[in-house]
Amino acid sequence: MDGVDHLAHERNKAQFDVDEMKIVWAGSRHAFHVSDRMARLVASDPVFRKDNRAMLSRKELFKNTLKKAAHAWKRIIELRLSEEEAGKLRFYVDEPAFTDLHWGMFVPAIKGQGTDEQQQKWLPLAYKMQIIGCYAQTELGHGSNVQGLETTATFDPETDEFIIHSPTLTSSKWWPGGLGKISTHAVVYARLITDGQEHGVHGFIVQLRSLDDHMPLPGITVGDIGMKFGSGAYNTMDNGVLRFDHVRIPRNQMLMRVMQVTREGKCVQSNVPRQLIYGTMVFVRQTIVADASSALSRAVCIATRYSAVRRQFGSQDGGIETQVIDYKTQQNRLFPLLASAYAFRFVGEWLKWLYTDVTQRLQANDFSTLPEAHACTAGLKSLTTSATADAIEECRKLCGGHGYLSSSGLPELFAVYVPACTYEGDNVVLLLQVARFLMKTVSQLGSGKRPIGTTAYMAQAEDLLQCRCRVQKAEDWLKPSILLEAFEARAVRICVARAESLSKFPNPEEGFAELSADLVEAAIAHCQLIVVSKFIEKLQQDIPGKGVKQQLQILCNIYALNLLHKHLGDFLSTGCITPEQASLANDQLRSLYSQIRPNAIALVDAFNYTDHYLGSVLGCYDGNVYPKLYEEAWKDPLNDSVVPDGFHEYVRPMLKQQLRNARL
Amino acid sequence: MDGVDHLAHERNKAQFDVDEMKIVWAGSRHAFHVSDRMARLVASDPVFRKDNRAMLSRKELFKNTLKKAAHAWKRIIELRLSEEEAGKLRFYVDEPAFTDLHWGMFVPAIKGQGTDEQQQKWLPLAYKMQIIGCYAQTELGHGSNVQGLETTATFDPETDEFIIHSPTLTSSKWWPGGLGKISTHAVVYARLITDGQEHGVHGFIVQLRSLDDHMPLPGITVGDIGMKFGSGAYNTMDNGVLRFDHVRIPRNQMLMRVMQVTREGKCVQSNVPRQLIYGTMVFVRQTIVADASSALSRAVCIATRYSAVRRQFGSQDGGIETQVIDYKTQQNRLFPLLASAYAFRFVGEWLKWLYTDVTQRLQANDFSTLPEAHACTAGLKSLTTSATADAIEECRKLCGGHGYLSSSGLPELFAVYVPACTYEGDNVVLLLQVARFLMKTVSQLGSGKRPIGTTAYMAQAEDLLQCRCRVQKAEDWLKPSILLEAFEARAVRICVARAESLSKFPNPEEGFAELSADLVEAAIAHCQLIVVSKFIEKLQQDIPGKGVKQQLQILCNIYALNLLHKHLGDFLSTGCITPEQASLANDQLRSLYSQIRPNAIALVDAFNYTDHYLGSVLGCYDGNVYPKLYEEAWKDPLNDSVVPDGFHEYVRPMLKQQLRNARL
Repeated sequence: MDGVDHLAHERNKAQFDVDEMKIVWAGSRHAFHVSDRMARLVASDPVFRKDNRAMLSRKELFKNTLKKAAHAWKRIIELRLSEEEAGKLRFYVDEPAFTDLHWGMFVPAIKGQGTDEQQQKWLPLAYKMQIIGCYAQTELGHGSNVQGLETTATFDPETDEFIIHSPTLTSSKWWPGGLGKISTHAVVYARLITDGQEHGVHGFIVQLRSLDDHMPLPGITVGDIGMKFGSGAYNTMDNGVLRFDHVRIPRNQMLMRVMQVTREGKCVQSNVPRQLIYGTMVFVRQTIVADASSALSRAVCIATRYSAVRRQFGSQDGGIETQVIDYKTQQNRLFPLLASAYAFRFVGEWLKWLYTDVTQRLQANDFSTLPEAHACTAGLKSLTTSATADAIEECRKLCGGHGYLSSSGLPELFAVYVPACTYEGDNVVLLLQVARFLMKTVSQLGSGKRPIGTTAYMAQAEDLLQCRCRVQKAEDWLKPSILLEAFEARAVRICVARAESLSKFPNPEEGFAELSADLVEAAIAHCQLIVVSKFIEKLQQDIPGKGVKQQLQILCNIYALNLLHKHLGDFLSTGCITPEQASLANDQLRSLYSQIRPNAIALVDAFNYTDHYLGSVLGCYDGNVYPKLYEEAWKDPLNDSVVPDGFHEYVRPMLKQQLRNARL
Repeated sequence: MDGVDHLAHERNKAQFDVDEMKIVWAGSRHAFHVSDRMARLVASDPVFRKDNRAMLSRKELFKNTLKKAAHAWKRIIELRLSEEEAGKLRFYVDEPAFTDLHWGMFVPAIKGQGTDEQQQKWLPLAYKMQIIGCYAQTELGHGSNVQGLETTATFDPETDEFIIHSPTLTSSKWWPGGLGKISTHAVVYARLITDGQEHGVHGFIVQLRSLDDHMPLPGITVGDIGMKFGSGAYNTMDNGVLRFDHVRIPRNQMLMRVMQVTREGKCVQSNVPRQLIYGTMVFVRQTIVADASSALSRAVCIATRYSAVRRQFGSQDGGIETQVIDYKTQQNRLFPLLASAYAFRFVGEWLKWLYTDVTQRLQANDFSTLPEAHACTAGLKSLTTSATADAIEECRKLCGGHGYLSSSGLPELFAVYVPACTYEGDNVVLLLQVARFLMKTVSQLGSGKRPIGTTAYMAQAEDLLQCRCRVQKAEDWLKPSILLEAFEARAVRICVARAESLSKFPNPEEGFAELSADLVEAAIAHCQLIVVSKFIEKLQQDIPGKGVKQQLQILCNIYALNLLHKHLGDFLSTGCITPEQASLANDQLRSLYSQIRPNAIALVDAFNYTDHYLGSVLGCYDGNVYPKLYEEAWKDPLNDSVVPDGFHEYVRPMLKQQLRNARL
């Protein structure tokens, strides 16, 4: 605006090499360059403007999203972008659209569940977007429990077709993104029935709309399910409702990689292992963890910069006030979130590795690590999305009143992010899956079966049940081995205690149900340990750049010690640490806040976000917040006229005491 | 819809008299009848319809609010409603509007800070709404720190006027509701300057707009500050921006009850005690606590009913699935919120008494209880609003995916509620005030000055620092004396420990700043004790109605034991309870959930909310959720046409591979 960097004094304080930190954050020099280039490409293109989203009506908003999606696709073709580049470009466009489901769910479903023949037929069409697909699984009455879906796919041997049907209102497909107005095709999940017998839930490719005039095909009722949380947010997406009235599709449109239905209507298992599906789950959830670190870092970047701009109290005699980032209450809320952003970034990076590892093993028919990998990704999806949703809202509150304005970017960021806690597995349901796996692991501890991967620490259960924390002074808490042991001991002790409680129930399932809330806590303890341990592992690597590693060490300690404080009940009730040690941890935490403080702005600069991507007046790079806030205000449609619509009909009669006779 | 009560089986399970509970909730039989009558009046009037709010553009939304405000006022006049009735009617209209500020801030400011003469002049105009006022305090750069306001009011002895001026951009008034487009007048807070000297911040009545044509008066720049969180929510309100360019007002428009400026420009303190202002604060914050219980109970009502309707998992062989309310994980999240709704209701009721008590004392020039009352209301405002905001979002998540739909009512309830955490005192700033008061109280413990009111328990500090919790079996936790002692001991011990830490700092203010995050926790411990103790006090009263008291007892225990579990670190680190006792508390909590379960629906019925007020398809009284959700979907503007706007320009070219040549 005026070309002055109002945060320059903050940037000058940094004690590390920001450019090197950018590489660490991006994952590699290559990743940084791709990301940087795509971010600038999007930011400089007026079609991708998004500062007016909150003011658009649903129809205008949706039309605008269609325009952006088409433009993005056009640019991808014109510039011959690689898959990686195209993905990043869509990421920076930063607007949920039907294309997300097409690329993120429809294509992978065909790849994962389609036969080679089916892939050869459908993928080229999808890759060129000659067809647009969505993923129609959840129903009005059925979400988490996929086995409870009601839609039926009945094989008709006379015509060699499946009849797709919605037998009840609650069987209406409900929520699929891209379904409401745009998709021409869907992968529909339905109960397979042949010869009067049920054969479980399977996926079917169903054409929904004519490729000529886009009208729904006969027997298909389809529409949008209506407005959702926020004013922009997911309202750019046509989440849809879909009902089938005996819609016929050819037999070869059932996705048959794992199970086939023959011409005669017989079900035949293929020799492709069913476990492959779990590989896909690991993949999808790994991307969700990566998205969590993106959303969280974005919110933290806004709140951190604004906390350095905003001043309040602290001056005597009308002098300059104190930057709110210098208040310990602000630091105590903000810096653990900054640390979490980095923590989630690194655990996401590790999950990417895990996915590669699982995939290679699956190809070699090694399924041994799958249950552990599945539990681990389920737990981390739950942990990181819940923490991120809460953190975005906390960042909004950290921006005080102005965080409530749409122009702060935080309300929409929250509204668009928060469904991540529910989709791809409700977070509580996922933690119960983790807990089930942990209870099984504990029960096998004596059996000679060694716990693997993220549960390997349980092999030391005997030691961990007895160890005593060695902290004697505050600085002892900086030792990775001490931190790790405390988190391991807490997780093991809670898991073992829960397993003992469970064993008192005659019926294990009843016990699991009765104790489920406590079991969720055990799962959380385990998952937090994973994040802490992967952060510590990251720090054992060689990390170049002046001061970079030191900052990450501080962040790692803040992350761990803040968790320890928040879950102090766990650590104390299991005797992992003493109240005195807890108090020392708190002292250490305060000292870490002071150490990170001068680096805070540079640490969020390292995310390398453009002002366009941030979409926040409060978080703008140059910190010139107030003139921008002021300017934004006047853009509201209400300011089109000085005297607002409705004044003459509804306010003037009130003022003139003529209301009694007014026709309203 | 089909006239069947789908929750009848739930209602039949109730073990208490719902009608009597409705009286308890309302506060009295009279209050219940007023509330019930006004709720029905609003619900049956089509002008007050609100189910289309999320779909309206900002301008349409705002115009609609003006219509409702005028209609409400018309009905109030026509039906000659009492002040109590009018307040309830506005409450059930349930849409933030300029009238809230007129009645809630402008009128009270004149009443509280105006001289008798000023009141006689301005109040009749305001009561008839011949003028409409707002409350212009916060500025673009200044919120919590009122003493930092920059707007100036300079006395000009030549003309006997004040010159109101905005010297900087950051001095622009920012946020006041009703200011943006509607108010004709404002109480403006500005630094008083006479004879070149500053005399602190005072209130001035300033006319903003012409009463003829509603145009801003010369020297005044005024407008709306733009969209806020959510699609409906507070976007019905014209929160405004206001700048003054040397605007002149007569001297008698400074509110002079406490301090006068004479014709000569001398400042003269009146004999009215300044503390009166704190009386107003106690009043406003008491209403905020009452609002918290309303908002929380509304969210809980929606989530509880839907949890009884929704079924997921739990059936083998395709039988009927389990109601999600029967899962312990759901109960563990939902029932403490139900208990909180009742807890906040009763503490709000008690605060109303406190306000009356304080007022009577002030009139008798007794200021002795004021600091304690002020700290107590500040703390309870903070505690209840933070808990309620979190609880609404938790209720939304408890409704799974469907909670994300606007038609669930929960997104807008969250967006409209959450500013309560920031306005009328940022919640963290308020807790620091409480902490300051607590530290002072602790420091005076040996001095013979007896702690009073909600801090009276501190007189037993010596006992409470040493006592040992007497719980030996789970049922012991049901004894009020044991619960109370545990919460008192925790609060005292934390406060004393913090005071000791503080005393180690040579400079007390530096110590307070350094330890502020820990001090906030001390304040929370104290405030939670207040809520628990007021709930217990309520139960010592005579409460008629079959089973009513028993249910409240269960809720009280759930409230307290859930807090104990959430803040276990506090209780254990201070040695108030042992890990074994904590475990027994958990066992007891699970058993309480089972006891409350059959009564859950009836307990939310007792709030007596109409479907109109709830504004939620998921929370409708008859539980007929799915057909209503389905019907709502089709109302979205996107469903106006089968093929959406933008399809031909932006999607068709993609499908037809003609994008390269398309003009977007």
